[in-house]
Amino acid sequence: MSQPLPNRVAIVGVGLLGASLGLALKARGLATQIIGVGRRKASLDTALEVGAIDSVAPSPAAAAAEADLLVVATPAALVTAVLDEVRGAGNVNLIATDVASTKSTICRHAASTWTAPRRFVGSHPMAGGEKFGPEHGRPELYEGTVCLVEESADLDPEARAVVCQLWESVGARVVSVRPEQHDPILARTSHLPHVVASAVAAIAGDSGASRLFVGNGFRDMTRIADSRPEVWRDICLTNRTALLQSLAETDARLHEFAALLVAGDAARLDAFFERGREGRRKVLE
Amino acid sequence: MSQPLPNRVAIVGVGLLGASLGLALKARGLATQIIGVGRRKASLDTALEVGAIDSVAPSPAAAAAEADLLVVATPAALVTAVLDEVRGAGNVNLIATDVASTKSTICRHAASTWTAPRRFVGSHPMAGGEKFGPEHGRPELYEGTVCLVEESADLDPEARAVVCQLWESVGARVVSVRPEQHDPILARTSHLPHVVASAVAAIAGDSGASRLFVGNGFRDMTRIADSRPEVWRDICLTNRTALLQSLAETDARLHEFAALLVAGDAARLDAFFERGREGRRKVLE
Repeated sequence: MSQPLPNRVAIVGVGLLGASLGLALKARGLATQIIGVGRRKASLDTALEVGAIDSVAPSPAAAAAEADLLVVATPAALVTAVLDEVRGAGNVNLIATDVASTKSTICRHAASTWTAPRRFVGSHPMAGGEKFGPEHGRPELYEGTVCLVEESADLDPEARAVVCQLWESVGARVVSVRPEQHDPILARTSHLPHVVASAVAAIAGDSGASRLFVGNGFRDMTRIADSRPEVWRDICLTNRTALLQSLAETDARLHEFAALLVAGDAARLDAFFERGREGRRKVLE
Repeated sequence: MSQPLPNRVAIVGVGLLGASLGLALKARGLATQIIGVGRRKASLDTALEVGAIDSVAPSPAAAAAEADLLVVATPAALVTAVLDEVRGAGNVNLIATDVASTKSTICRHAASTWTAPRRFVGSHPMAGGEKFGPEHGRPELYEGTVCLVEESADLDPEARAVVCQLWESVGARVVSVRPEQHDPILARTSHLPHVVASAVAAIAGDSGASRLFVGNGFRDMTRIADSRPEVWRDICLTNRTALLQSLAETDARLHEFAALLVAGDAARLDAFFERGREGRRKVLE
């Protein structure tokens, strides 16, 4: 049951994710007009130059008035404010989605402010990379990735089908997820790992270590600590409850480990590491 | 000032590191006889088959009686017991080293039991991998790696020169380090990362996450959680003091982060992630 994709697509925020989406739609001939919105003129100019967008609108509301489908590709903390502007534009047929790494805050806000059946459907495409900005946009960014798409009782089924079709059309596999299920899981598979890797990297930085003292283990384990602070600050601020809970779990695990180490309990130290190995395999199998 | 390498080398423990050392020496024609010692007959048979050792001795003491240079390549927790046996063999000319990832406990034990000037010199070749056992031994394992070699006042300079020459001859770069400097640094660049990655992997395993919810960040960050529990248990048990201190530092960092998150302090959350990024760059630069 393939849904025809709307012709006029607005992309608010033309960073790596937004620009890559525009390029992917253009490369496949899937949108006749892509309207970009952004705070920085330089980014919009670049997005136009690389062909990720066809035109620029002065505001999310202006873009919403012209578009059939609007994608909010701003940092996570700005999504709800953009949605408020978009909603105020009065385009009742507009379908909207986002690309933020957290879903509970955003989807709850949309559920309480958009009219039902809701035509904003949250998305979390699991794509990206160390590079950012429209100049690094790639039409194949979403190919072979997973896009988590909101599943909620108040959604308009047609809008949801269009959003699923959007991601599938650029090569992603859509997986349905409830926002209240999404955020606690992502806290533990993504947000907590970032926080913890950052803590470890800071501690190593203070230890007097040089590259002569590190192997690939440290390099791989802390790679995500080399991400953009403002992105992770926003993600963490929009997933506070689940992240704080996962930090409490970490605290408990590490205190348990320290107690076993003090006691010299070899068997239970084995079990500690074994449980980590099993946890990783369970997630990745 | 190249030191001639001894002809008769004993390797106690023919796992990945021990077997690779034997293969590397044989491939370069650097030892006329390599004597293997091990607890498991199957491993010794494999080491003989792949050509990592030429003969088998029944005990570390027996090997020490026949050898000029003895390398203890057992798990970290067994090194001091092997050194006690070796010392009892009465070969006063014997030079010995090890390959353990922790140095304080082992070198302190040697300093208090071996006669001065000490001919046991601790080593920590930073090589290895996910595979283990003599069947995965490779003559090029040490090429391009760093080997940290003990620097202490009571060492016999000739013995130390031979041990340095051993590692350089198989392609490693020798870096001198005091044991009391080695362990606190390695706690933070290697042992703490393993413990923390293991905790995160266990927590993710309990979260209901599947591979659909993880990206490369999680995969890379927890890769070291897929190591052998018994190896990391031993490493942690032989580096208790520094590891407990680094766990306390982690605890402090994570509690600080949680407080900033509760307060919604965006600027300081930025600074938290920025410090992680800087720490990583400082270590790896």
